[in-house]
Amino acid sequence: MAKVLDGKPVVNALLKRMHEKVEHLREKGVTPTLCLLRIGEKTQDVAYEKSILKQCEAGGVDVVRIILPKNATQEMLDKKLMEANVDDSIHGILLFRPFPEQIDDEHTRELLNPDKDVDGCTVGSLSGIFTNTKIGFAPCTPQAIMEILHFYGIDIERKRAAVIGRSLVVGRPISAMLMHENATVVTCHTRTDGVDSITREADILVSATGRLNSITAAYTNPHQVIIDVGINWDEERGKIAGDVSYEEVEPLVNAITPVPGGVGTVTTCVLVEHVIDAAERAATGEEKPI
Amino acid sequence: MAKVLDGKPVVNALLKRMHEKVEHLREKGVTPTLCLLRIGEKTQDVAYEKSILKQCEAGGVDVVRIILPKNATQEMLDKKLMEANVDDSIHGILLFRPFPEQIDDEHTRELLNPDKDVDGCTVGSLSGIFTNTKIGFAPCTPQAIMEILHFYGIDIERKRAAVIGRSLVVGRPISAMLMHENATVVTCHTRTDGVDSITREADILVSATGRLNSITAAYTNPHQVIIDVGINWDEERGKIAGDVSYEEVEPLVNAITPVPGGVGTVTTCVLVEHVIDAAERAATGEEKPI
Repeated sequence: MAKVLDGKPVVNALLKRMHEKVEHLREKGVTPTLCLLRIGEKTQDVAYEKSILKQCEAGGVDVVRIILPKNATQEMLDKKLMEANVDDSIHGILLFRPFPEQIDDEHTRELLNPDKDVDGCTVGSLSGIFTNTKIGFAPCTPQAIMEILHFYGIDIERKRAAVIGRSLVVGRPISAMLMHENATVVTCHTRTDGVDSITREADILVSATGRLNSITAAYTNPHQVIIDVGINWDEERGKIAGDVSYEEVEPLVNAITPVPGGVGTVTTCVLVEHVIDAAERAATGEEKPI
Repeated sequence: MAKVLDGKPVVNALLKRMHEKVEHLREKGVTPTLCLLRIGEKTQDVAYEKSILKQCEAGGVDVVRIILPKNATQEMLDKKLMEANVDDSIHGILLFRPFPEQIDDEHTRELLNPDKDVDGCTVGSLSGIFTNTKIGFAPCTPQAIMEILHFYGIDIERKRAAVIGRSLVVGRPISAMLMHENATVVTCHTRTDGVDSITREADILVSATGRLNSITAAYTNPHQVIIDVGINWDEERGKIAGDVSYEEVEPLVNAITPVPGGVGTVTTCVLVEHVIDAAERAATGEEKPI
């Protein structure tokens, strides 16, 4: 039976760290503030926003919400974004994506002030991850994975890691971050043949396939640590589930993150910590990311 | 016996492509021009410069050389670099690195105008590689590898690739570039245990260990294509050699690049093509890299 890598104690440890930073900032008269920029009322966005609001409250971070109608134009969005970019009382900006189709994703991301890119979505922030320089913030999901691995004392150095997925939000940055901590990483994707034969040799398996029950026993080995990034709807059971066929796999591996209650739980907390860190950087006038 | 992936025919194909572009530019009154910025007279730098001059001449690219004394200060270098940055008659700038110890590498690289970063050494250029966006130029060595693979029609899609080395100049960018063409890539490094057991499973092996004879038969398989990035001095034989123990390995694999005459030969040519491309971008007023 696997050790379950529950996200809650990780969140509690992060909150403790965050509270100390926030206290310090409040002494300087700074209240870390996150600006949420949302277009329309998509169920998923509203649910995510709710969890962010809750986590911001727990972390001592204020929130400014800007909500545009679902048919908002690029110009409307650009204007609001540029206002938030230069507003010194706002330390971080979160753009709810994917945007509606009239909005240009790349254009909008690159308009975002990199100092306030707490979600790590600009090319500048990502370049910091890939080159392992201290530019910007990491995307929150891969950083949440690293927080979980660190919290539970899972060895990364000299281990083999397999990542399934090569998105800029999860797969590619987590591959880079694991390598920076001296794992040997293979990144699998939709054009990889025999993924199971690759992952079977991995000490750490990160799945970001986004497909329910796509990780079966054949992908695993008994000493493996599985990080399940998937958030899928299990129609049959009427509940949220990860990529891993949990009942089948859990008894066979060394450790596994649950879904829900695993990576996702920590991800929102990481976002909130980024806001605090951005406020710290602004307050101390630390050199800005290029 | 392996097919030898000779660099010369690749260079000839590149030169043909370059000549067409240069002709087009000359019709517009533009002569693509490379600025070489060298500090001191290190043997290696002078040798590299010589091969660049030769290749520039072959490619129809003018060269401006700026040579500073070996005890040049950061301020002297910055001044020269900034002049070249804004000089419209210069389309590309090559910094000879590693610099002498009084020069700050990161500071200097980031001072370089990214539009003129024909060697792909700024964080901006690298971020274009890692995110697979058309920002800046690729570092020349990994691009030379891709040119060789393409020229010889070597399949990349769905193949397994192993890269040994994780530098920002070779290992990490070539891993990203191979993945963008749908290879499944594992990047090995100094903290990887059992490198030979990993590379034995690879269809394509890229070695950038920088250690003579470090790739032996145990690292290979009969259908493998080996790209040898190493340029080492073989004391015993009194000649340049790669990372691969060539006499041992060559009879056992499918294809292999020679050293000298392989990747290095193509690399200089790629650099020269970047100057031409930078001149084209400047002439057409193409949107600048961010």
